[in-house]
Amino acid sequence: MADTSTSTVPPRGLNIGELHASLTDPLLDAMNFLNEVASRFSDAISFAAGRPWEGAFEPEDLARLVRSYTDHLERDRGWSRDQVRTQLFQYGRTNGVIHDLIARTVENDEGIRVAPESVVVTVGCQEAMLLVLRALFATPEDTLLISSPAYVGVTGAARLLDIRVHSIPEGPAGPDPDAVAAAAAEVRAAGGRPRALYLVPDFANPSGASVPVDCRHRMLEVAAREDLLLLEDNPYGFFSRTGERRPTLKSLDRDRRVIHLGSFAKTALPGARVGYILADQEVFGPGDRRTLLADELSKIKSMTTVNTPAVSQAVIGGLLVESGCRLREANAESIAFYAANMDALVGALDRSFPEPDLTRLGVSWNRPEGGFFLLMTVPFAADVKALERSAREFGVLWTPMSDFYLDGDGTRQLRLSCSALDPRRIEEGVRRLARFITDQAAAEPDRPPG
Amino acid sequence: MADTSTSTVPPRGLNIGELHASLTDPLLDAMNFLNEVASRFSDAISFAAGRPWEGAFEPEDLARLVRSYTDHLERDRGWSRDQVRTQLFQYGRTNGVIHDLIARTVENDEGIRVAPESVVVTVGCQEAMLLVLRALFATPEDTLLISSPAYVGVTGAARLLDIRVHSIPEGPAGPDPDAVAAAAAEVRAAGGRPRALYLVPDFANPSGASVPVDCRHRMLEVAAREDLLLLEDNPYGFFSRTGERRPTLKSLDRDRRVIHLGSFAKTALPGARVGYILADQEVFGPGDRRTLLADELSKIKSMTTVNTPAVSQAVIGGLLVESGCRLREANAESIAFYAANMDALVGALDRSFPEPDLTRLGVSWNRPEGGFFLLMTVPFAADVKALERSAREFGVLWTPMSDFYLDGDGTRQLRLSCSALDPRRIEEGVRRLARFITDQAAAEPDRPPG
Repeated sequence: MADTSTSTVPPRGLNIGELHASLTDPLLDAMNFLNEVASRFSDAISFAAGRPWEGAFEPEDLARLVRSYTDHLERDRGWSRDQVRTQLFQYGRTNGVIHDLIARTVENDEGIRVAPESVVVTVGCQEAMLLVLRALFATPEDTLLISSPAYVGVTGAARLLDIRVHSIPEGPAGPDPDAVAAAAAEVRAAGGRPRALYLVPDFANPSGASVPVDCRHRMLEVAAREDLLLLEDNPYGFFSRTGERRPTLKSLDRDRRVIHLGSFAKTALPGARVGYILADQEVFGPGDRRTLLADELSKIKSMTTVNTPAVSQAVIGGLLVESGCRLREANAESIAFYAANMDALVGALDRSFPEPDLTRLGVSWNRPEGGFFLLMTVPFAADVKALERSAREFGVLWTPMSDFYLDGDGTRQLRLSCSALDPRRIEEGVRRLARFITDQAAAEPDRPPG
Repeated sequence: MADTSTSTVPPRGLNIGELHASLTDPLLDAMNFLNEVASRFSDAISFAAGRPWEGAFEPEDLARLVRSYTDHLERDRGWSRDQVRTQLFQYGRTNGVIHDLIARTVENDEGIRVAPESVVVTVGCQEAMLLVLRALFATPEDTLLISSPAYVGVTGAARLLDIRVHSIPEGPAGPDPDAVAAAAAEVRAAGGRPRALYLVPDFANPSGASVPVDCRHRMLEVAAREDLLLLEDNPYGFFSRTGERRPTLKSLDRDRRVIHLGSFAKTALPGARVGYILADQEVFGPGDRRTLLADELSKIKSMTTVNTPAVSQAVIGGLLVESGCRLREANAESIAFYAANMDALVGALDRSFPEPDLTRLGVSWNRPEGGFFLLMTVPFAADVKALERSAREFGVLWTPMSDFYLDGDGTRQLRLSCSALDPRRIEEGVRRLARFITDQAAAEPDRPPG
């Protein structure tokens, strides 16, 4: 179609090889692919969807929530009607306008004490990761340590910014402090600079693992000794199945080693896309220039999204005001919902794979103490092909784990999410899954390594 | 305070020199600084604020707009109540849910025909820039051409991504096609690869310049010949002062050379933070893999903000539905408002600097045919110190232009914005400005160069 006789370069069409390398990274394709399979088999029971419970929200609630927030501004702070209008409709403070409500909430819910000025309100936790990574990673040597398997959001953001990543295999209790220290030494020996460790201490996505309290203390010691920052991501912390509540790293942090990343997607609603960063680190500049890391992050945010939408902040602000800045209490129903689902999932697996079938098949899974996700090991390649067969012939979806590893691991692992189902569907889903696994193991009868 | 006797690295405190270089770029400080001056002198008349008119919105309108959008989903598309709830409260389609309404609107308003699948809904135009730059710039040689003086949003986003930028001084009618061709050759000669040109063809920020229609055609020819993409940013296009309406580059584009960036911040409301990208370019991959550039941008968006908040999209969606996807007509009042303000600004300047004072002082300004901004040249350094004096002693704020140049130009230029004022305040502001300029020229009596 292009007229090659002219001196003009042929029009239209870009070559994928000329675009940024992240676009040909299988990682960034993974989510799209999974969504595509899920939409093709929309009748299947999905242990793939990690989306939160939608709760009891109705469209009309949005108006009430905004009203709760604007009433708070007028009544508790004495704002004029004009000030409220400007807050809702105009450009605003780069680091957000509900930072004080968030500071109060994390103090009430987590015992984390930070000044409101240390809070950066972001467009979901994904922007939080992007801002923090951009600020901290300055040279090609700067290396991000991640606990592997890792949430694709953080590895993807690192990929966008061409940040070097070093993955640390995690144990049954998540990332191990000694392994982190060893990895830091390894990175240094190879000429890199270990800058920060990203971790989800509670009920991690995808593994469901949680870091014991003594390991949290040791992780802070390792961070101090190795001069690492800890990027603590905590989307699932409320959702304990056992009722046990562990302190966040940030609440134990005496040296400002921890940058805490938060999200309201699971504790409030995803549609608002509001997250936050607690960045109370001091930044020293030339002369006696002192700022907070939050102030530096604000400069970056002004070049990514300028502001988190005021409308979204008003919705979340309304929820915080209505809960008295005690979101954990307001989440009692959600906490019970997710606990019941995880109980149902673990129970259904126990019933569906009794001994001696379990040992004979070589199937195993962990028993997360909370959160949305459970990790299962199967005796065959849990890949895209297997997933399609599972969906088509057995009506059940799950997530292949290999996308969550950077080093080719996890080929015989799958992730089961129970957040968007109910116990009855979970029971039926596990029955289907058991049939699929038994059938697939017979069809592909090699044993898992080890 | 740190105990240097232990082997532990001293706690707390980051060194700015170890953070990403963008954080010590004066560019990213500029906006923060200007906001700080503006807040210290909040009683001054501000020609610095580039914020849009707030229009007639009231907080209660948000509920109505969301309702207009959800009614549209239920009535026009036959969605169930549950589908609407999920759309509002849940994670959603990465490239947005009001893409079809946007496609209809740009066709009605601009004569741009793209499939809804080519639309990426973004968190304001700033995220649009970030996504496009990240996708297109793959190697250190890839160079972004910008018309200088340039909007800080694009130079800032390039800085975040360590993208090489080459600036092209613009003439009174904005970027010149021959200068663009020459710059592309210059970049190539230096071993770079000119990849794209960023430009604001209508009433640019900060210069107020507009590209004549014949130059738009020639710009497209140059882009084809030099194998450049054109990143057309069009936030102010509606706001013609003369009534003349020029075609956007995208509406003239036959070769899919143009990636069009749009914003609802000025034509609807900034508080929603909704922008968009029209990216209908085909991307060729291995084998016969074909995607749209919009699909590739979606992968990047999933690593920056995941979704544009559904709540924000519902508000803007409601506005589009209510306007029948004819936003230009819905903006009649805003268009008249900005035209009257720019008339008032130009008129007041004419009256305040009559000849022979004008020539004697060495003051000049352009006469933008629309938009928010006017460019003024003064016979002294229009820097931070001058701005502070202007604010403190004369009660008038403006924006130093040097931040908009990458090459140290613009030291005797200032930007006047008339978007957030009214004719009476503009009149008074220009009187104050004239007093300041006359006084400052006398205090610092050297002449402008040339």
